[in-house]
Amino acid sequence: MLARVASGELTPDEAAAWLDEVPVLNRDDIEPDVEREARTGQPEVIYGLGKTPTQVVAVARALLRADVRPILLTRATEEQVRAVREEIPEAVHHEQAGLIVIRSSDQEPSGRIAVVSAGTSDLPVAEEAALVAEAFGLRVDRIVDVGVAGIHRVLAQVPTLERADCVIVVAGMEGALPSVVAGLIPCPVVAVPTSVGYGASFGGLAALLGMLSSCVPGVVTVNVDNGLGAAMAAHRIVRR
Amino acid sequence: MLARVASGELTPDEAAAWLDEVPVLNRDDIEPDVEREARTGQPEVIYGLGKTPTQVVAVARALLRADVRPILLTRATEEQVRAVREEIPEAVHHEQAGLIVIRSSDQEPSGRIAVVSAGTSDLPVAEEAALVAEAFGLRVDRIVDVGVAGIHRVLAQVPTLERADCVIVVAGMEGALPSVVAGLIPCPVVAVPTSVGYGASFGGLAALLGMLSSCVPGVVTVNVDNGLGAAMAAHRIVRR
Amino acid sequence: MLARVASGELTPDEAAAWLDEVPVLNRDDIEPDVEREARTGQPEVIYGLGKTPTQVVAVARALLRADVRPILLTRATEEQVRAVREEIPEAVHHEQAGLIVIRSSDQEPSGRIAVVSAGTSDLPVAEEAALVAEAFGLRVDRIVDVGVAGIHRVLAQVPTLERADCVIVVAGMEGALPSVVAGLIPCPVVAVPTSVGYGASFGGLAALLGMLSSCVPGVVTVNVDNGLGAAMAAHRIVRR
Amino acid sequence: MLARVASGELTPDEAAAWLDEVPVLNRDDIEPDVEREARTGQPEVIYGLGKTPTQVVAVARALLRADVRPILLTRATEEQVRAVREEIPEAVHHEQAGLIVIRSSDQEPSGRIAVVSAGTSDLPVAEEAALVAEAFGLRVDRIVDVGVAGIHRVLAQVPTLERADCVIVVAGMEGALPSVVAGLIPCPVVAVPTSVGYGASFGGLAALLGMLSSCVPGVVTVNVDNGLGAAMAAHRIVRR
Amino acid sequence: MLARVASGELTPDEAAAWLDEVPVLNRDDIEPDVEREARTGQPEVIYGLGKTPTQVVAVARALLRADVRPILLTRATEEQVRAVREEIPEAVHHEQAGLIVIRSSDQEPSGRIAVVSAGTSDLPVAEEAALVAEAFGLRVDRIVDVGVAGIHRVLAQVPTLERADCVIVVAGMEGALPSVVAGLIPCPVVAVPTSVGYGASFGGLAALLGMLSSCVPGVVTVNVDNGLGAAMAAHRIVRR
Amino acid sequence: MLARVASGELTPDEAAAWLDEVPVLNRDDIEPDVEREARTGQPEVIYGLGKTPTQVVAVARALLRADVRPILLTRATEEQVRAVREEIPEAVHHEQAGLIVIRSSDQEPSGRIAVVSAGTSDLPVAEEAALVAEAFGLRVDRIVDVGVAGIHRVLAQVPTLERADCVIVVAGMEGALPSVVAGLIPCPVVAVPTSVGYGASFGGLAALLGMLSSCVPGVVTVNVDNGLGAAMAAHRIVRR
Amino acid sequence: MLARVASGELTPDEAAAWLDEVPVLNRDDIEPDVEREARTGQPEVIYGLGKTPTQVVAVARALLRADVRPILLTRATEEQVRAVREEIPEAVHHEQAGLIVIRSSDQEPSGRIAVVSAGTSDLPVAEEAALVAEAFGLRVDRIVDVGVAGIHRVLAQVPTLERADCVIVVAGMEGALPSVVAGLIPCPVVAVPTSVGYGASFGGLAALLGMLSSCVPGVVTVNVDNGLGAAMAAHRIVRR
Amino acid sequence: MLARVASGELTPDEAAAWLDEVPVLNRDDIEPDVEREARTGQPEVIYGLGKTPTQVVAVARALLRADVRPILLTRATEEQVRAVREEIPEAVHHEQAGLIVIRSSDQEPSGRIAVVSAGTSDLPVAEEAALVAEAFGLRVDRIVDVGVAGIHRVLAQVPTLERADCVIVVAGMEGALPSVVAGLIPCPVVAVPTSVGYGASFGGLAALLGMLSSCVPGVVTVNVDNGLGAAMAAHRIVRR
Repeated sequence: MLARVASGELTPDEAAAWLDEVPVLNRDDIEPDVEREARTGQPEVIYGLGKTPTQVVAVARALLRADVRPILLTRATEEQVRAVREEIPEAVHHEQAGLIVIRSSDQEPSGRIAVVSAGTSDLPVAEEAALVAEAFGLRVDRIVDVGVAGIHRVLAQVPTLERADCVIVVAGMEGALPSVVAGLIPCPVVAVPTSVGYGASFGGLAALLGMLSSCVPGVVTVNVDNGLGAAMAAHRIVRR
Repeated sequence: MLARVASGELTPDEAAAWLDEVPVLNRDDIEPDVEREARTGQPEVIYGLGKTPTQVVAVARALLRADVRPILLTRATEEQVRAVREEIPEAVHHEQAGLIVIRSSDQEPSGRIAVVSAGTSDLPVAEEAALVAEAFGLRVDRIVDVGVAGIHRVLAQVPTLERADCVIVVAGMEGALPSVVAGLIPCPVVAVPTSVGYGASFGGLAALLGMLSSCVPGVVTVNVDNGLGAAMAAHRIVRR
Repeated sequence: MLARVASGELTPDEAAAWLDEVPVLNRDDIEPDVEREARTGQPEVIYGLGKTPTQVVAVARALLRADVRPILLTRATEEQVRAVREEIPEAVHHEQAGLIVIRSSDQEPSGRIAVVSAGTSDLPVAEEAALVAEAFGLRVDRIVDVGVAGIHRVLAQVPTLERADCVIVVAGMEGALPSVVAGLIPCPVVAVPTSVGYGASFGGLAALLGMLSSCVPGVVTVNVDNGLGAAMAAHRIVRR
Repeated sequence: MLARVASGELTPDEAAAWLDEVPVLNRDDIEPDVEREARTGQPEVIYGLGKTPTQVVAVARALLRADVRPILLTRATEEQVRAVREEIPEAVHHEQAGLIVIRSSDQEPSGRIAVVSAGTSDLPVAEEAALVAEAFGLRVDRIVDVGVAGIHRVLAQVPTLERADCVIVVAGMEGALPSVVAGLIPCPVVAVPTSVGYGASFGGLAALLGMLSSCVPGVVTVNVDNGLGAAMAAHRIVRR
Repeated sequence: MLARVASGELTPDEAAAWLDEVPVLNRDDIEPDVEREARTGQPEVIYGLGKTPTQVVAVARALLRADVRPILLTRATEEQVRAVREEIPEAVHHEQAGLIVIRSSDQEPSGRIAVVSAGTSDLPVAEEAALVAEAFGLRVDRIVDVGVAGIHRVLAQVPTLERADCVIVVAGMEGALPSVVAGLIPCPVVAVPTSVGYGASFGGLAALLGMLSSCVPGVVTVNVDNGLGAAMAAHRIVRR
Repeated sequence: MLARVASGELTPDEAAAWLDEVPVLNRDDIEPDVEREARTGQPEVIYGLGKTPTQVVAVARALLRADVRPILLTRATEEQVRAVREEIPEAVHHEQAGLIVIRSSDQEPSGRIAVVSAGTSDLPVAEEAALVAEAFGLRVDRIVDVGVAGIHRVLAQVPTLERADCVIVVAGMEGALPSVVAGLIPCPVVAVPTSVGYGASFGGLAALLGMLSSCVPGVVTVNVDNGLGAAMAAHRIVRR
Repeated sequence: MLARVASGELTPDEAAAWLDEVPVLNRDDIEPDVEREARTGQPEVIYGLGKTPTQVVAVARALLRADVRPILLTRATEEQVRAVREEIPEAVHHEQAGLIVIRSSDQEPSGRIAVVSAGTSDLPVAEEAALVAEAFGLRVDRIVDVGVAGIHRVLAQVPTLERADCVIVVAGMEGALPSVVAGLIPCPVVAVPTSVGYGASFGGLAALLGMLSSCVPGVVTVNVDNGLGAAMAAHRIVRR
Repeated sequence: MLARVASGELTPDEAAAWLDEVPVLNRDDIEPDVEREARTGQPEVIYGLGKTPTQVVAVARALLRADVRPILLTRATEEQVRAVREEIPEAVHHEQAGLIVIRSSDQEPSGRIAVVSAGTSDLPVAEEAALVAEAFGLRVDRIVDVGVAGIHRVLAQVPTLERADCVIVVAGMEGALPSVVAGLIPCPVVAVPTSVGYGASFGGLAALLGMLSSCVPGVVTVNVDNGLGAAMAAHRIVRR
């Protein structure tokens, strides 16, 4: 810490702020789980909620130092975005998805997935899934606005869907789209419920329960609004 | 009461059993709401759960006396069925649907509906809907096994669906079928969630929430397993 | 896009903003389901929650171009309202209901419904139902402040209710009004629970469960606060 | 204990069974809260669920010895009923209500309540309320089958309701009746939700939430199927 | 309306605002249920949530005109308070309870209740109960800070509690206080759960369920934070 | 039908029973979705709950006739098992898993998965997953009794886990095992919550919510006790 | 296995039954986590639900062989009890608590706890806690029938409570007792909600939420009906 | 009060504000439960939510006057912090934990605990636990960032964990960490679920249910985000 102040990397005030802010952190503990990539092929992701900008930057720096890639910051607040961008210029911010990505430069696409979403309101979650998948080196076909109310529009996309190694289906409200898609194609289908809706949607619960109860066995589900998790599941599936 | 014992309609023992069983009933109170038919065009239905066979027969008799038709007994237990059949020979029992019907003899069909169900396990509820609708004088097209996992089978039924004045859609698990159907045809769609499923279906809750959250505005919903209610709604809709 | 910039319809900045905002949209995908009206007699509705003003305007324009009517925008935010009004002058904004309507000019009233609400706090939902019904060409009798605590006021409205082809009943708290109304008249009754209440109302859940559990079979229910859905159901019912 | 065996009150076998069954009970601990009547004017009630017949008889005897009256055993199982009747001949069993009552002989009626129930299936709970109230010396008017679907039947009972010092309203399904009744009369209204219903009734939850959310402030509620509690509340209210 | 503008009671602008705001209100419909006092001895209460200031003032005026007293406005927003105070100078605002009261001048105290609360955070609800009870002419003993964690403080209040005709117990968190109080005294106990707490309190659900499950039969419960309802129940109980 | 009776395939009594039992089935409708295998590579599965033995046999026969393999009957009742075994001798019944399997004879193993379960009580679900996976031609390593309470036993299994193309993790109670496993290996992890537990487990809800909330993004989840779905997901993943 | 058959420990039939029953168990995997005692000072407990008698006996034998003590089998079914008693004569069965215990012979009491229960219906859970604590070598004071409805009876037990190193409080319904007890004494208080109650108790949920929301910080809670867990927590606390 | 104004401790305005704000408080009632420390060894804690700054300061002063230590104010709002600091200079504010502490000067450390947290977002709750424990005189080892996704990091902390007299484990999301920790060490483990997470985490419910359902009997749980309660439980455990 002193060294970084000495070198001008941190001002004394910043250092003081740091010490004030994270009193429970041993200086060594800030090192995130940098070996996770070695074990699982996927690095630790920085989850923005409930972290201070200082904490977010510290974790990102530690991952950078350990040559982990991609570095992902999800559910980033405005202040976190500003802090990361200032400190790490190569960080790219995707506003709709609330996502910051630091990629390696030399990645080869290693597979192809489709990200299907039922309505325009589902786009932030769909984009989180698509961008994370791309950060992990997958090609992504984006298919939007194909809700079950207009079933012919789903059917029109079957050729694209059949080209995918894995399909992520993002839907709110009654969450019916994954069952329809999974009944049409043979590849793995990862369902993502969204919190789009009101009243009996109960913040995505209706879609979540519907997807878990799907009449097509083989559909798998992730948490509400969890585009990140769907993309990382797709990456595990496709890269084999 | 005494008169009925005197005339042999009741044995003294039956009368005693009666008095023992329904101590809180004034003899006049047993008269059900026989004027409901006059007000709403639909008579009071006898709901079997929690009633003794003696109570069920008493209400049925009172409705018979008031010339109400059809008389419907839903969720009938075996004992209730036996008691009603003994006392009222014209009562017809439908086992799969757990329903007893006493119809008028001279009804003219007054409209046409379709009852669509997603899976074989949904048949008891679908049959309740279909039989009640027929008891109210509607023609019924039954369409089975058209779950969203095989969407082409739904599409193949569009001509039949378009012929209907109202469509009842019965589905458990994720309850996605009503949205698909309502996106294909212009007539009213009444959705009936069923308790078919397990785990995250929570006894029909997943299907119920899904139907209430349908992405097709205009779908209306009744209670879980409530084929009766769907049929009576269809009757209100069609007979106008 | 370039053409529209060239023609001055969009400034280059607006075009850039657009591209920045909806990166996942192929330019063709923005076309909404314009054939839904042909299939179901009811066009796609624009649901405001979670959409940017740009997205809302884009969908509205696409529907306009396809000569779809009425065009409805529900749960519109202030920014969406401003954006739509600037771009589409014939759009009419109804503040209490949070609704924007673009109607066709030459519609003939095709039936009559009643919209009944239990309390003044239920008015925004009741108005959404009434305005949407009018946008679809129905005549609407509005009946307010007839909660079950003053049952004589419900009874006083029976003559008006009997004149309707369909009655929409809007109620929060215990949601008892639909059962009372449906016990008095023969036409279809569509129940709309509202989120009015607190504590054990659980944001409309009490009213919703009450309506689904109605002791009058034949009452049908839509989602909490879903005046739109009730009106579209009424339209499907009445226009036959 | 030895004394009771010596005196022939207990056989040695019964004593052994006792010792085997209630190893954790100090012999003194079995004395129930016999002073509760002195403090609250209402003795401890024996709640049958989860108790052995031996335990039930032991508590009843202890209350008898302490001259507490009435002694009430609710939710009695068949075995408990048999055990109590053998040991305590003055115990009266009410089958429909699942209740055993031991009254004092010389009670004067001290007030008048009405117990109103919405449907025949609600009778067991209504009877529990009525019988417990009578055991506490209240006169009870029983009014049955006055659900909100036939609102005129409620209105016809207003004269009887106005005569009461307190009204207990028992209703399942949507639980709307207490609001209607409380809007018609000035006396206290105690609402009892019942578990009658299925699906969205969730074992009485719909009725419970509805009653708690009543649009008539001043309605008070007890637990689902808790006729006992309603009657004891009425007794507290009326005897003042 | 024109008359009121002519007389200067309303400016033309106010009249226009009015017409704009409440288009669905027939001018006659604004009359609230002024006969409720005649039927139940308690006038309609104005519930502030979801109403505009204009609507609130209109209802208050209508009640004033009908000589109804007391007039109560609960859950009043700042804007509603301002609007009512400007228009009706005799209205008294109680900030902690979020309550406006317009009393009659000549009321005689007609009974005595106690309002007991478990913690300082429960005071707004307790005050709502106490002030409403006073508005209905009851004397109120306020007892605060007697949570079950310091049980001797409850016991120290028994003499005051025994003097009451009815006790209102207000408690959040585990909601245990009503059972303790009801086990000590013979008068009616009305339990009010509050939303004080976090996590497993689920906005008052823990306290609500606890009170409904009270081991003392005879405790009655109202909705979460419903001090108003408890006071009106107490008034019904005490005035007999 | 007549032809089959004529040929002796059905006795007249069986035919009559059939007609009595499935009145709503057109004879053609009984054909299940035999093309599903062509579309998705996985045939329709027969879900036993709520079906009569006759219905189950009819569907199995139709699938047999269409040369679909494997044929799976899950959650088979004793009566269904007896009926199927009598009619289709090549059906193999697995009692612990409640599963009937009819396999093709000439399947080549096409990949390898591991099925991990936390406790002995989870074995029925784990076996359903393992047997279904084997029916689809996968090799299965079964790993049992590796709950997180003895974390070293999980670690000891890492070499086996790393050999798998996909890992299914079956766990009840707190459902923590999938997160631990997914943090150790790179392949896809499908989590199956079980209903093992009591109280706060709420029939598997605790495990389900835990798995959906996993701190390892990329874990995917299926319904409670849904070993079948996990296996079919694994098959979709591995066969690519 | 063969060795055990050869030695007569198992008959060939038993061996076959075994192999048939636990096909997924490698013979080595049946070894339970015998090192848990070394790590935590508490051996693995056998949880009966969902296990076959054969599995239960196998685990018990493995623990016996490893000299683990005490061996506990909770929630034992009748068949499991019979099987264990036949095979392991030193096993003691406690019927009320549904518990089997195999203790070491030479244990010294190492501390003292109190187990307090609110009502007679809570005894099975209280006994499970007391017996398990005794199996771990603790002295146990049992205090029964001290519900909050009779608060003086709690106060009378303070001297006994103050003697304890840890108090376990078992209560159903509103679960208020732990807060009262913890407000009176300084030692650790472990709260055990029970499923005693009905309706709004929701199988122990009311008591559970109440205990978690206790107004006395420092109360800790275990799962519903989890007497076992409370005792093992007490053992961890006291033995230090 | 007058004395304090006279002495200048309060300005007349402050006194007026006081009287206005706490009208229901008898001046004596403001005395908090100062004897709680004598009974339980732990003083009453001031819970900030729902209290005005004036109320908070009043309670703190009363505790100061009674020589109670430590004085703790949890969930303090900014205004409360400002008010307390102005009036009581020795109060120390910990921002991350939302906690104010007034300690005695001469406390001796009396034991050692560890506070373990799974992720950086759990730090505010972990800090609340650690700071409260320190205020009660315990030494605290803080261990951070040891989620189950990187299980080796948990294992690396076993030596520190084994040194503790009690371990507090703070975790959100699936809440799996307490089971893992409790399976490794013999001392008491207090689990604290946090509201970190989204969707199926339901504000900490997933973690709470998971901890209550822990497969390691003996884990005890406190309310969501209740670091305070965990620390006070640890103090009760350790100080014996």
